[in-house]
Amino acid sequence: MDIKDKRIAILAPVAWRTPPRAYGAWETVASNITEGLVARGWKNITLFATKESITKAKLVAFVEKGYEEDKTQIPKVSECLHISKVMQHADEFDLIHNNFDYLPLTYLPFIKTPMLTTIHGFSDPDILRVYHDHKDTYYVSISDSDRNKDLPYLATVYNGIDLSNLTFRQTPGDKLIWLGRIHLDKGTHLAIEVAKRCNMDLLIAGIIQDQQYFDNLIKPYLNYSSIQYIGPVNPTARDALFKEAYAVIHLNTIPERFGLVLAETMAAGVPVIAMDLGSCREVIADKQTGYLVNNVEEAVEAVGKIDSIDRRKCRQHVEENFTIDCMVRGYEKVYEEIFRREKQKNKE
Amino acid sequence: MDIKDKRIAILAPVAWRTPPRAYGAWETVASNITEGLVARGWKNITLFATKESITKAKLVAFVEKGYEEDKTQIPKVSECLHISKVMQHADEFDLIHNNFDYLPLTYLPFIKTPMLTTIHGFSDPDILRVYHDHKDTYYVSISDSDRNKDLPYLATVYNGIDLSNLTFRQTPGDKLIWLGRIHLDKGTHLAIEVAKRCNMDLLIAGIIQDQQYFDNLIKPYLNYSSIQYIGPVNPTARDALFKEAYAVIHLNTIPERFGLVLAETMAAGVPVIAMDLGSCREVIADKQTGYLVNNVEEAVEAVGKIDSIDRRKCRQHVEENFTIDCMVRGYEKVYEEIFRREKQKNKE
Repeated sequence: MDIKDKRIAILAPVAWRTPPRAYGAWETVASNITEGLVARGWKNITLFATKESITKAKLVAFVEKGYEEDKTQIPKVSECLHISKVMQHADEFDLIHNNFDYLPLTYLPFIKTPMLTTIHGFSDPDILRVYHDHKDTYYVSISDSDRNKDLPYLATVYNGIDLSNLTFRQTPGDKLIWLGRIHLDKGTHLAIEVAKRCNMDLLIAGIIQDQQYFDNLIKPYLNYSSIQYIGPVNPTARDALFKEAYAVIHLNTIPERFGLVLAETMAAGVPVIAMDLGSCREVIADKQTGYLVNNVEEAVEAVGKIDSIDRRKCRQHVEENFTIDCMVRGYEKVYEEIFRREKQKNKE
Repeated sequence: MDIKDKRIAILAPVAWRTPPRAYGAWETVASNITEGLVARGWKNITLFATKESITKAKLVAFVEKGYEEDKTQIPKVSECLHISKVMQHADEFDLIHNNFDYLPLTYLPFIKTPMLTTIHGFSDPDILRVYHDHKDTYYVSISDSDRNKDLPYLATVYNGIDLSNLTFRQTPGDKLIWLGRIHLDKGTHLAIEVAKRCNMDLLIAGIIQDQQYFDNLIKPYLNYSSIQYIGPVNPTARDALFKEAYAVIHLNTIPERFGLVLAETMAAGVPVIAMDLGSCREVIADKQTGYLVNNVEEAVEAVGKIDSIDRRKCRQHVEENFTIDCMVRGYEKVYEEIFRREKQKNKE
């Protein structure tokens, strides 16, 4: 049997539509995996998501709308109905690929179909109680650094990004850029410090996730010339922003789990100066597509060395490692390994 | 086989210890059912609750403490682990009696053991999505009035109360009493109006559930003589309070689901004047153990007729209908009916 005939259920969260209209990182990845598998010739892909979701695979849905888009819903009600229904269909599939988080694992003892869980993040240490209770299943991490040491992982599969709307540009802009959710974790204030010390302009883009942080540590430094906040950017505006970028400054203060923005930046040919924390070292090729630094001092130095980065190399690094196709090929290998192990188990 | 040899799993919530140290209505009922069954000679009762729970039945637990008593826990994590474990043990039981709410129902398609769910309340209309998705299981309502018309109920089984700490007193006190959670739903402000119009003293006891309601509609009328707020009362203080009671005024503004306080009041021999809404008509014998009224006017009239109520009759009404033993006998009948139906099913 051709592996691409295997029946795969992709389980998406139901907070947002899949793919989401705007925010919804896990729904985005679930969509990219689903559409990526279809594009690579998989014939029996089923997406479990909200009813209004859009896919070239077969859509099976029990929840009308994302609970974040319909506040009459109690999230837990939608979640447990959605998951229970998927599990009731389990024997129609050769593999369930769970992109939902921990709740589906508690239904695992009742089904025979193997399940692969991509752990998109540990939102709270307490959710480890569920993962640690299920060590005989299959896990994928989204970076080597975002692993819990007590869990058995099959592989790391990096998130893949959609390269449309990310134009490669050989010619550097003349500004520093900060892009992301404005929050202490993402170190927006450190980008301001770097810009001031380099005497360069800084454009800050993204949603304000922590208003108090913004009011206290960002707003006082804004002006209408050298340091500007331009608000959230959609993919088109983001592409225009990268045109102005000399480099992106990403001095995260906690370990990155993956760092989509790093991959997006490099895809546009823009080098990144990032804190050497978490997955940054895995996503950026140090001294080739940007610089890994440990503090503002080193970041300022790195700005001085940006001209030695080949912007074509940045784009190439993403094309070779962080496209949707790369991600799907990663999952194909994982699926293959699961089928091999399951076959072995059934023999024993 | 003696029905009392049947293996019953009582599934309690894990918000609090079972029985709870203070608050925890559903844990209280789960405990009363468990201990009541043991007291009536059931030999194979297993309580699924937190590890520190106390029972004469067999305790099986997976969650250390109630998540309301240990804020490091994510409630959903404890809930789904607890329920999943119960379900994994399902085939060791002849019946699972779910006192947990709707989440266990979503695991029902994966087990063969029948489940009885006591619906202790519809916290939000959205949870009906789960109940309506499971109409081929067994339900009990806690009053005839607290029923959803689209659900198949086997019976109503009223909550049973523990009569210890509820001393019967023949001699009336001279005060009006209001007892409960201070909230608009419970009509504390209407009790004040009744007391003022009757020119009688009023003692208000219970937790403040809605501080704004208390500040705006209760506090302005308090003084240190005729209208007093005495705070929450434990069972001993409650017993002392009933000694002072001429009548309890309970002018709820939304339908009662059951009304434990009504039963507790009558157990002490105290008549209740209650709004004719929801289950009040089922718990109070109108004109025999109190009065059902439709507004403050009628409540004031009813106060004038309290002397015609036989306080012994109030106590007797509770003894005959709302003790733990009554409740457990109610559940015994329901269990018997479930076993009969299951036997029938297996024949077909």
